[in-house]
Amino acid sequence: MSDPRVAGIGLTHFGKHPERTGRDLFAEAGLAALDDAGVDPDDVEELFYGNFMGELAEHQGHQGPLMAEAVGLDVPATRYESACASSGVAVREAVKTVRNGESDVVMVGGAERMTNIGTAGATDALSIAADDLYEIRSGMTFPGAYALMARAYFEEYGGSREDLAAIAVKNHEHALPNEYAQMRQEITVEDALDAPTIADPLGLYDSCPITDGASAAIIASEEYAEENDLDASVAVTGTGQGGDKLALQDRQYHARAPATEAAADEAYADAGISSDDVDFLEVHDCFTIAEVLALEGLGLYEYGEGIGAAARGETTREGDLPVNLSGGLKAKGHPVGATGVAQIVSLTKLLEGRHQRADAVEDATTALAHNAGGTVASATVHVMEVRE
Amino acid sequence: MSDPRVAGIGLTHFGKHPERTGRDLFAEAGLAALDDAGVDPDDVEELFYGNFMGELAEHQGHQGPLMAEAVGLDVPATRYESACASSGVAVREAVKTVRNGESDVVMVGGAERMTNIGTAGATDALSIAADDLYEIRSGMTFPGAYALMARAYFEEYGGSREDLAAIAVKNHEHALPNEYAQMRQEITVEDALDAPTIADPLGLYDSCPITDGASAAIIASEEYAEENDLDASVAVTGTGQGGDKLALQDRQYHARAPATEAAADEAYADAGISSDDVDFLEVHDCFTIAEVLALEGLGLYEYGEGIGAAARGETTREGDLPVNLSGGLKAKGHPVGATGVAQIVSLTKLLEGRHQRADAVEDATTALAHNAGGTVASATVHVMEVRE
Repeated sequence: MSDPRVAGIGLTHFGKHPERTGRDLFAEAGLAALDDAGVDPDDVEELFYGNFMGELAEHQGHQGPLMAEAVGLDVPATRYESACASSGVAVREAVKTVRNGESDVVMVGGAERMTNIGTAGATDALSIAADDLYEIRSGMTFPGAYALMARAYFEEYGGSREDLAAIAVKNHEHALPNEYAQMRQEITVEDALDAPTIADPLGLYDSCPITDGASAAIIASEEYAEENDLDASVAVTGTGQGGDKLALQDRQYHARAPATEAAADEAYADAGISSDDVDFLEVHDCFTIAEVLALEGLGLYEYGEGIGAAARGETTREGDLPVNLSGGLKAKGHPVGATGVAQIVSLTKLLEGRHQRADAVEDATTALAHNAGGTVASATVHVMEVRE
Repeated sequence: MSDPRVAGIGLTHFGKHPERTGRDLFAEAGLAALDDAGVDPDDVEELFYGNFMGELAEHQGHQGPLMAEAVGLDVPATRYESACASSGVAVREAVKTVRNGESDVVMVGGAERMTNIGTAGATDALSIAADDLYEIRSGMTFPGAYALMARAYFEEYGGSREDLAAIAVKNHEHALPNEYAQMRQEITVEDALDAPTIADPLGLYDSCPITDGASAAIIASEEYAEENDLDASVAVTGTGQGGDKLALQDRQYHARAPATEAAADEAYADAGISSDDVDFLEVHDCFTIAEVLALEGLGLYEYGEGIGAAARGETTREGDLPVNLSGGLKAKGHPVGATGVAQIVSLTKLLEGRHQRADAVEDATTALAHNAGGTVASATVHVMEVRE
């Protein structure tokens, strides 16, 4: 049982593409991944595909077969849905399938169309990641839910809006050279603090944008990569998944993310590493507070310590533990179903030295991807390491 | 690598339950499966859950964590969506996970709420299993799509409405003693032929009903079953999945189901059996013509021969190859996301001799489940065998 390799990667630009269909977006990302991998498309045996709101945004379910056709693959295809962790779950299944020898080469990817239904439409569609009966019908939205979590965090551990603003500033700065990113403007802490409040204490710059986009990767067995002389030095060495109660009201913790903790524990054990071994990472920062909960849930910071990490410069590209060098969901954008695989794409490029921010992690060998669904009712963690 | 066992099963009544939520339905089925298995719920390591139209019927995505909580499981939970094959895909992943030693005990299940949104709402929601751009916007509905397939079949191979009526009559008769079935009235060929036309050549009795319901099963490793002295003699010995173009217009065949053929080939090879070894089966008869396409796709009949099987008495409970002893989707009902696992439930009960129709298959040892999505753009096949 050897570790599956990331043999190829593909992304669309993340941003507003209301005139492009989901299949059009995914075709671009999927064909780019095939091209990047240089594998024979006929060798691809299965498609693992993440999508969240296709039923509401495009009146389109059953997207597995649709997306296989869009990239020209005549293979079994399954759609995974775990809210914003949809393609993180797809990665997990793809990795397991290759690792267990069930397939030699598979495609994993995701896509989401969101801007075509407008901000109100997208906000409504996003809300189905929470509990419709007990949260949404009471008026909860996702900015509201994460605002509640931020308040719970401030109350339990301290922290301030300035701390959160530093996270937004960092992720915006990271995205500046990223040609795939939606938000490529520098912001200051003052910009963030002066921006309109979305749900107190979260302001406009604490929130990720609404985004269209797609992502894809080719996952191949080590043996296949060797036999076919693929340029595939990055391996997925650990996978983990965790769950929590769907509704905030049913949770034991509001300022912690037990689903992330469970996923991280499993992924670290699976890879045979500890949190100390992680050189850099992409985390699910749908809101700035989510990056804090992620860093602590992943065991990289003690509870209450993650909030100041960006402000202290530790998680910037010049810090010891760069976080979200792609720009994160905050600045790269968050086409929901594409996000989990987009993290794998970014980390692969960084580990291979072909990302615009790769100079920040020149000798790094170990990276981590953290994808979360809803208010972290589901989470996946993947460990990626340079091999050979 | 030993074959996973079906350690416990649970179903709700299939029918109209507009006043019950999806979580309520799934809790009933899941708790029944846990009770039937007699396993410690704390031993269950993961939930594999199928649902198709929750976004449209209940404004609820992200149902994995929701359903885990509904049955009291604090485990990672993933929702699989492949239209009407949603929980067939979940079964496949559950079986692979246990077989590969990643978990010893898992729950697999599915649920669907449909009647609360009315016939027009359910018809619209079902339509997202087809291609929205090129089929649905042209006015296609699923009865229309299967009517096109029936016409193509008649043109290519022959057959008549009487042949299809015999399938409906058979499945209605099979369901008579099934306390979980939605339709428990006997019908005649004349009833079927005289019924209102839905989409020519398909009439009311060629079409499965709209159904609420849930299903669940506990899948355990052989080793766990032995160590814990579980009553679990039925093993899932083969799994297969196939895909096809989503839209009918893009297909090579309209009177064949290549996705079923691919899934069957893989499942037979996986189990080390041939189609000749199948003693009885449950197939995806969302429309009567679908049962014909299934039987031929599974290699149980030559092309053009499956249409007459029921009329000749071969697939009735008194025939050599009983098909849909549960009543099938036609008479048992078709709560979409629950159907794939419900087939596993029915086959387990039949193989264990505790189904009302078990006398039809007394010495049988090998059964098969066939679940299909859309116009068979996706399909799963599972082989089940009595062991010990």
